[in-house]
Amino acid sequence: MFKLEKTSKQSQARTGELQTAHGSIQTPFFMPIATRGAVKTLSSFDIERLGSPILLSNTYHLWLRPGMEVMKRMGGLHAFMDWKGAILTDSGGFQIFSLEGLRKLSESGVTFQSHIDGQKLSMSPEDCIDIQRTIGSDICMVLDVCTKLPATKEQLTEALALTERWAKRSKEQFEKTRATAINPGAQLFGIVQGGTDIDLRKRSLEGLLKIGFDGYAFGGLSVGEPFEDACHVLEAIEPAMLKEKPRYFMGGAKPDEIVAYVKRGIDMFDCVLPTRNARHGSVYRFVHDDVSKPDFFEVLHVTNEKYKDSEERLITDQYSDVDEELSRYTLGYLRHLFTVHEVLGMRLATLVNLRFYLELMKRIRRSIEEGTL
Amino acid sequence: MFKLEKTSKQSQARTGELQTAHGSIQTPFFMPIATRGAVKTLSSFDIERLGSPILLSNTYHLWLRPGMEVMKRMGGLHAFMDWKGAILTDSGGFQIFSLEGLRKLSESGVTFQSHIDGQKLSMSPEDCIDIQRTIGSDICMVLDVCTKLPATKEQLTEALALTERWAKRSKEQFEKTRATAINPGAQLFGIVQGGTDIDLRKRSLEGLLKIGFDGYAFGGLSVGEPFEDACHVLEAIEPAMLKEKPRYFMGGAKPDEIVAYVKRGIDMFDCVLPTRNARHGSVYRFVHDDVSKPDFFEVLHVTNEKYKDSEERLITDQYSDVDEELSRYTLGYLRHLFTVHEVLGMRLATLVNLRFYLELMKRIRRSIEEGTL
Repeated sequence: MFKLEKTSKQSQARTGELQTAHGSIQTPFFMPIATRGAVKTLSSFDIERLGSPILLSNTYHLWLRPGMEVMKRMGGLHAFMDWKGAILTDSGGFQIFSLEGLRKLSESGVTFQSHIDGQKLSMSPEDCIDIQRTIGSDICMVLDVCTKLPATKEQLTEALALTERWAKRSKEQFEKTRATAINPGAQLFGIVQGGTDIDLRKRSLEGLLKIGFDGYAFGGLSVGEPFEDACHVLEAIEPAMLKEKPRYFMGGAKPDEIVAYVKRGIDMFDCVLPTRNARHGSVYRFVHDDVSKPDFFEVLHVTNEKYKDSEERLITDQYSDVDEELSRYTLGYLRHLFTVHEVLGMRLATLVNLRFYLELMKRIRRSIEEGTL
Repeated sequence: MFKLEKTSKQSQARTGELQTAHGSIQTPFFMPIATRGAVKTLSSFDIERLGSPILLSNTYHLWLRPGMEVMKRMGGLHAFMDWKGAILTDSGGFQIFSLEGLRKLSESGVTFQSHIDGQKLSMSPEDCIDIQRTIGSDICMVLDVCTKLPATKEQLTEALALTERWAKRSKEQFEKTRATAINPGAQLFGIVQGGTDIDLRKRSLEGLLKIGFDGYAFGGLSVGEPFEDACHVLEAIEPAMLKEKPRYFMGGAKPDEIVAYVKRGIDMFDCVLPTRNARHGSVYRFVHDDVSKPDFFEVLHVTNEKYKDSEERLITDQYSDVDEELSRYTLGYLRHLFTVHEVLGMRLATLVNLRFYLELMKRIRRSIEEGTL
């Protein structure tokens, strides 16, 4: 389902095409985050206008609300939010393991309390697959054990072994549920863990390769460790990765870091930065066209006093269906909207930033094709 | 600037056309409210898609933020929010007189504390005109005295006399500033006060007629009094109103009440109900086509459990440029968005409700033309 197209001569960067049950996607690509079935402030119509062929949602959050009974009756998430493109669902493992309070791990799965009402819940790797089958995701993620750091090497090794056993069970459940699934063309990705320990990362990857997945994700990076550490991990295990499978860097990153990870062989990204920063009044902008130089972008903090009478437009270049709308408004107007707490400000900034990230990926692909990355 | 077209034989309802410096508007019409330079959750692009030729903003709020220095440098509100249609600005009198704490009324104007930072401010009727000139409104409103109820007849009479003297000064300032205004084609409306006292209302109207305005508004109605009282006031003073001037009912009303006020000769409306109710999960919908019958609409409270798996669409009929987007989503999805506090829910409901109010006005106009209202 993944077709490698071009590999850079200067780096591990590559272009390709990932086929999903809801359309083909050029790699490398970025996924806007629709945690609860909506990218904050935007409709699926808006995401289409932005031109994204895929979005990411969250298994744990959708499981709690609207719940799988409603999800089933509504025909899955594609129908529920009327999204015609592809959907990848994060397993929710990261969210569950981040929960405060009672959280018990066992061979069978994880028991925890809902962040909404404290209700006691449990999720096994099989449950996680069943939920994603009900959601109808195009790309499902296995439930993994996210160990709280700092942890001893022994603790990490144990967690990895359990993650591997869970990954095997996930794959079995995934195969078992294919025939009856609303989206039988779905794919399953494994998640490589192991923190910044190269030895553990390699062991984790090897375990997953033995089981065999449609793609391989890197979890537990971009969680606060130095940027160089993530690069080091990717460089060290890149040779062990399969060329013909897509590689997904979970939860990252800043625009220049995305370029760096692409150069280390990554094909897929998701990140809250463009949308979260938008809601705090920070907007991304290209400074020049050469994404191989780290100063290719800037971040404007539009709540700053200096923008109060700026007649500069939110965007000046044209490359998506939201441009007609966005090019009408000034930085001064955007600042005003944030000052008076109008959510339109968050919405316009969200459109600007997602448009930036999506265009960034296009420029990265072009650079790889032109041999400059 | 107002051209009366058809008057009903069964009621005082009338159709006409109001010419403004930013386009002609068929009457009766409804104005979406953009208090701080944005209809909550919507851009001016969205208002265009909804098909409204006019919106309403607020002098007091814009005066405080972004302030008139910024407003002047940005070229007025039309340029600031990139709105090509007409703008009516409420004087802000209602907001100022609603402020808690220190608020002192004198012959010259009103002194009060900003609701944002407690700063001591003052506004004279002349200031109010100057501010609206800077905003570049197409329809300016005079600053009026809004007396807190209950009040004695003596207090109300005094307030009316002061309102009349302020109206006269407003008119003079409006004429004096025409030549240098960024929008010299602007109009000025007087505001009829007097509560539910017919005698006071008549005196107020007579005073304003002597000064002469481009239109006449009714303030202090739809503020909690029985609906019948407002109807009674309008019926009693309708014969004294000029046929050839537009009549504006400020701050109201529910859909069936709007029909009732149109039947009593009103041409213009603004109301927070469609947008505020939208933000609380209530959406308006037509039940049948005959707006002369009060049961022509219903209000759905989509946060209700019963909508959780409703596959019914937000809209089923087609009449605006937002229909393509709105017809994609179900009541079940909208309920989910409210349940998980996604502002997209507020936005979709706001579009649905404004679309309803704008279509209501079209149906009212059609009914008057067809002689059924």
